[in-house]
Amino acid sequence: MTVARRRTASEQVSAALLSAAETVLDRGGAGAVTVRSVAREAGVAPMGVYNRFTNKDGLLAALALRAFDDLAAAIDVGSDTGSPADRLRRACQGYRRFALAHPARYALIFATGSPASDPASPVTTRGREVFTILVDMVAGLALRAGLDPVDAAQAMWNGQHGAVTLELAGVSQTSDAAASFTETIDALIRGLQT
Amino acid sequence: MTVARRRTASEQVSAALLSAAETVLDRGGAGAVTVRSVAREAGVAPMGVYNRFTNKDGLLAALALRAFDDLAAAIDVGSDTGSPADRLRRACQGYRRFALAHPARYALIFATGSPASDPASPVTTRGREVFTILVDMVAGLALRAGLDPVDAAQAMWNGQHGAVTLELAGVSQTSDAAASFTETIDALIRGLQT
Repeated sequence: MTVARRRTASEQVSAALLSAAETVLDRGGAGAVTVRSVAREAGVAPMGVYNRFTNKDGLLAALALRAFDDLAAAIDVGSDTGSPADRLRRACQGYRRFALAHPARYALIFATGSPASDPASPVTTRGREVFTILVDMVAGLALRAGLDPVDAAQAMWNGQHGAVTLELAGVSQTSDAAASFTETIDALIRGLQT
Repeated sequence: MTVARRRTASEQVSAALLSAAETVLDRGGAGAVTVRSVAREAGVAPMGVYNRFTNKDGLLAALALRAFDDLAAAIDVGSDTGSPADRLRRACQGYRRFALAHPARYALIFATGSPASDPASPVTTRGREVFTILVDMVAGLALRAGLDPVDAAQAMWNGQHGAVTLELAGVSQTSDAAASFTETIDALIRGLQT
């Protein structure tokens, strides 16, 4: 019992530090996340952060895993309502909401420098798992002959990622970003099907 | 004559400084571009850069204008060969080549912090002009009823931008980025047409 209680307390500290790290990330982007800045945010000595996350890369990897969990939840629309295309559309809207609500977390996992660009990182494994949610949805469409669901899912992802990153950067050429996102998704769904 | 000669010499200096700035940009991204770093790269006193570009923002604006010129050249495939869809596909391939060859210039104009996100900047005006090249190409397609060429062009852009930025970030889930880019473009062209 004592051991179990100690572990729980330790996990609570780790969770609190990770929340502090996420606050730093949301405020200043991945570049602002350091052992020192997270310790300051959490009100602990740097050693407390170092002991659990080792360094900046360890912090960013933990934050990226959490971001992928949140993204997975955002695109999870269940499997038993609507047509495959309708479910996919809802998942895409969840994807956009996640990106717009948490641009720094989104950039952490998908922009240059992402821990998911390292094949050896557990973040990359988790990213592939989340991508598989999209693949499974796309596989439910009436895909064109010879079109692999993974390739079709990548095309869907390309469209979503492009739309939300141009929107976030403030450089889109249409005034209604929500409508443009939906049109992009719809065009891709039409174009990938027979 | 003397006045004209002097102006040419001054323009040559400006061009040399801009080339130096582009070298700094290509090497370290927009964050590395400063009056001081460009002066060092060009082998001149900081005042020489300051006199022509005022500050970092002035340098980045000049670099962004040059990047848009290069992008315009990259997507310009002429108007008299192939079907509208074929010309559009070639323009998209030129777009990808530009992004992959010059990732820092590409990020400067289209990532968060772009001078093109400021409505008052001449860079924004130039960006809209270059986008119009895409709009004109897309307008040649047999677009679905009620679909505005500007909206269709934004959808095409979203797909291209997403594909190349995920490729550049090294987080794509397909092994053949060139094939994935082409499939995304083709799906969009199919999906936007009747």
